[in-house]
Amino acid sequence: MDIEQGNNDKIALSEKCSWFSRCFAKIKSTTIGFLEKIKKIAMDDPRRIAHAIKVGLTLTLVSTLYYVTPLYDGFGESSMWAVLTVVVVMEYTAGGTLCKGLNRVFATVIAGSLGVGAHHIASLCGQKGEAILLGLFVFLLAASATFSRFIPEVKAKYDYGVTIFILTFSLVAVSSYRVDELIQMAHQRISTIAIGVATCLCVSLVVFPVWAGEDLHKMVASNLDKLANFLEGIETECFGEKSNFESLEGKPFLQVHKSVLNSKAMEDTLCNFAKWEPCHGDFSFRHPWKQYQKIGGLIRQCAASMDALSSYLTTFSKTKPIFKADAELLLEIETACREMSSESAKALRELSSAIRSMTVPSLAKCHVSAATSAAENLRTALSNDITVWETIHVAMISSLLAELVNCTKEIAGSVDELAELALFKSTDSVNSAVVKPVSDEEMPQQVTIDISG
Amino acid sequence: MDIEQGNNDKIALSEKCSWFSRCFAKIKSTTIGFLEKIKKIAMDDPRRIAHAIKVGLTLTLVSTLYYVTPLYDGFGESSMWAVLTVVVVMEYTAGGTLCKGLNRVFATVIAGSLGVGAHHIASLCGQKGEAILLGLFVFLLAASATFSRFIPEVKAKYDYGVTIFILTFSLVAVSSYRVDELIQMAHQRISTIAIGVATCLCVSLVVFPVWAGEDLHKMVASNLDKLANFLEGIETECFGEKSNFESLEGKPFLQVHKSVLNSKAMEDTLCNFAKWEPCHGDFSFRHPWKQYQKIGGLIRQCAASMDALSSYLTTFSKTKPIFKADAELLLEIETACREMSSESAKALRELSSAIRSMTVPSLAKCHVSAATSAAENLRTALSNDITVWETIHVAMISSLLAELVNCTKEIAGSVDELAELALFKSTDSVNSAVVKPVSDEEMPQQVTIDISG
Repeated sequence: MDIEQGNNDKIALSEKCSWFSRCFAKIKSTTIGFLEKIKKIAMDDPRRIAHAIKVGLTLTLVSTLYYVTPLYDGFGESSMWAVLTVVVVMEYTAGGTLCKGLNRVFATVIAGSLGVGAHHIASLCGQKGEAILLGLFVFLLAASATFSRFIPEVKAKYDYGVTIFILTFSLVAVSSYRVDELIQMAHQRISTIAIGVATCLCVSLVVFPVWAGEDLHKMVASNLDKLANFLEGIETECFGEKSNFESLEGKPFLQVHKSVLNSKAMEDTLCNFAKWEPCHGDFSFRHPWKQYQKIGGLIRQCAASMDALSSYLTTFSKTKPIFKADAELLLEIETACREMSSESAKALRELSSAIRSMTVPSLAKCHVSAATSAAENLRTALSNDITVWETIHVAMISSLLAELVNCTKEIAGSVDELAELALFKSTDSVNSAVVKPVSDEEMPQQVTIDISG
Repeated sequence: MDIEQGNNDKIALSEKCSWFSRCFAKIKSTTIGFLEKIKKIAMDDPRRIAHAIKVGLTLTLVSTLYYVTPLYDGFGESSMWAVLTVVVVMEYTAGGTLCKGLNRVFATVIAGSLGVGAHHIASLCGQKGEAILLGLFVFLLAASATFSRFIPEVKAKYDYGVTIFILTFSLVAVSSYRVDELIQMAHQRISTIAIGVATCLCVSLVVFPVWAGEDLHKMVASNLDKLANFLEGIETECFGEKSNFESLEGKPFLQVHKSVLNSKAMEDTLCNFAKWEPCHGDFSFRHPWKQYQKIGGLIRQCAASMDALSSYLTTFSKTKPIFKADAELLLEIETACREMSSESAKALRELSSAIRSMTVPSLAKCHVSAATSAAENLRTALSNDITVWETIHVAMISSLLAELVNCTKEIAGSVDELAELALFKSTDSVNSAVVKPVSDEEMPQQVTIDISG
C-alpha cells in the first residue's frame, strides 16, 4: 500500500514536471516567435527604431518644462499641454508631423479667439444666462464642425484640425465660466502648445527625417518594378525556350502584382502628407505629388489586367494542352507575345529607373512603340483571316466570362460559409417547392406545385 | 472739359458697379454651389446630421460638470478631461466609439498605475535623481510603446490605446514631480474620463445608433448587387436581341464595378469596429465579421476580372466588326455567353438578397451550376476542334498582353507628364545616341554610332 502510494506520488510528480516543462517550452517558443517578429519589423525598415527613439527623446525634452523650476514657474500646469501635444502630433513622416502640428497650432489660435469672444458675449447675460448661452454656442459649433468633417476635402486635409478646433473652443468657452484670468490661461496654453509643436517639428525635420514624399516617390518606382517582374516572368516562363505553360500554378511571378492592387490607401496618405513638406533633396515644395496618384491609379489598373491574365494562365496550365497543330499562326502569335511582354517589361523598368534617378524616360518611348507595333502586327495578321478573327473575339469574351463564373462560384461558396457561421435562417418553404416535371404525353390541365414547409 | 469729366466719372462709376455686381454674382454662385454640396452630403446619408447633433449634445451634456457648482467642486479642473474625452472618443459608428472609449479607459488605468509606480521608485532617489529617473522611464516607455505601433495587430486594434497609454504615463510620471496629491489627481482624472466615455457610449449606443456591423453587412450585399448589374448589362447589351457590340464605350454598366475595386480600406475599418459592437438587431456579439472580409476580397477579385473584360469590350467595340461568318460556332459561343452572364448575375442577386434577409442562399447553387455547366459545355465544344482551341488560347493570352501594352503606354504617358511637371533632368547624352541605319547592300565593316551631348 505504501509502495503503491509512493509510486502514485512519483507519477504525480513526474506529471507535474512534464506539465511545467511543456509550459516552459510553450512560453519559450512564443517568446522566441515574438522576438523574431519584432526583429523582422525592425529589420524591414530600421527607420522605425529611429522613430521610436525620436518620440522618446522629444517627450523627455519637453518634460524638462516640469523639471526646470524657472520654466515651471512661467507656465505652471499648462506645461501639461506641451507633453500632450508631443504625444498626439509626432508622426512617422515629417509631412505627417507638419500636417498635424500646423493644424493644431492654427486650430488652437482660431478656436481660442472664438472661445474668448463667446465668453465676452455670454458674460453680458448674467450668471444663468451665461451658462445657457455658452452651452448653446458649444452645441452649435460642435455640431456644425462635426458635420464639416463629412466634406471630403475637409476630411482629407483638415480632419485633425477640426477635432482640435472643437476641443479648444469647448475648453475655452466652458472653462471661461470658472476661470477668472481667461486671457492669461489661453496665452499660457497657446505658448506651451507652440513649444510642443516646435520641438516635434525640429526633431521630425532635422533628426533622420522620414519624408513622406520620398517614400511615395520610391513606392511608385518599386510598384513599376513589380509590374516589370510580372511581365519578365511571363516572357521567360510562357514564351521562353523551354517553356510549355505547364506547372504555372504557384509560380511567384504570378503573385507579384497582388500587393500593388491594395496600395491605394497608403499612396493617398503619403500624398496627403507630402503636400505639407518643405523642399528636401531633389523635391521642391511644389513638387507635383498629385501626378504620383494619377500614375498610381494607372499602375493599379495595369495590375488588375495582370490579375485577369494571371488567373487565366493558372486555369489554362491546369488543362495542359499539347501544342502540335497549326504551326505557322501559333508561331506568329507566340513571337508577338514574347515581343509584347519583353518590350513592355523593358519600358516599365526604364520608367521605374527614370523616376528613381529623376531623369526624363527617353528610352521608354522606343520600348512602348515596339510593344505597340507588335500588338498591331498581330492584330493585322489575325484579322486577315476573318473567321479566325471573329471566333477569337467571341471566344475571348466567353473565356473572360468563364473567369467571372469561377469568381461567382467562389463568392457563393464563401457566402455559404457565412450563412453557416452566422446561423442564417434556412428558407425551407422555398427549398421544398417542388415542381413536378410533366411529360409532354400526359398533358394535364394543371401542373402540381407542392409547397410543404 | 466738365462734360468729359462727368462722362469719365459715369464710366468709372458704371465700371465699379459692374465689378461689384460681378463679385456679387460670383459670391452668390459659390455660396449656392457650397450649400448644394452640403445638402447633397446630408441627403446622401441623413444619419450624418444625426451624428453632428449627437456630438453637440454630448459635449453640452458633459460641460454641465462646469456649470453645476456641486459637480465642479467635486472634480475641479479635472472636468476638462471629460470634455477632452468626448471630443476625441465620439465616432460616427457605435463600434468606433466603443473601440476608442474602451481603449481610452483601459489605457488610462494601466498607464496611470504604472505612472504612480514609477513615481514611487523615482522618489527614492532624491530631488535630482528623481528627475533623471523619471526622464529615463518616460523615454524607455514612450520609445517601446511607439515601436509597438508598427506591429500590424497592435496597429489595427489598439493604436489609439497605445497613444493614450504614452500620454497618460508621461503626464502622470512627469507631473508627479510637481503635484503632491498624485493619487487624488489620478483619481479625479480617471473619474472624469470615465464619465466622458460613459456619456459618449450612452449617446452612441442608444440615440439613433449607427452600427458599423450593419453598414459592413449592407456594403457587402450592395457590392454583390453591383457585380450583378455589370453581368446583366453584359447580357442585354452584348448578347441581347438587338445587341451588336457597337457603341459600348461610355455605357454606365461598364463602370459599375469600379467603386468596388477601392472598397478595401472602408471594409477593413468597418470590420475592425464591428468586432467591438454588442449584439444588435440580427447580429450577435460573435458574428463572423472576418468572413465578410473574405467575401469582400473575392468580390474585389471578381471586380478586377470585370475590369479586364470591360476594357477589352471597350477596345473591341471600337474596331466595329461585322458579324457574318461561321454561323454555327459563333451561335454556340454566344448562347453559352448569354447563359453564363445571366445565370451568374442571378446567382449574385440571390446571394445579395440572401445576405440582406440573412437566409441561406439555396437558389444560388442552381444558378452557379447552370453557369458552370454552360462554361464547361463551351469548353468541350471548342476543344473538339483542337486547332481552334489552341489558337483561341494563345490568342487569348496575346489579347490580354495587348491590354497590358495599352496600360504600359498610358503609364509611360503619365510618367512623361510627371517628368515635365517636376522638371526631371533630361539625359541628353543618351537621347542623341543615333544609330545610323545601314542597308544590307552597303555591308560596311563598322556601324557608326554617333554620341554627341
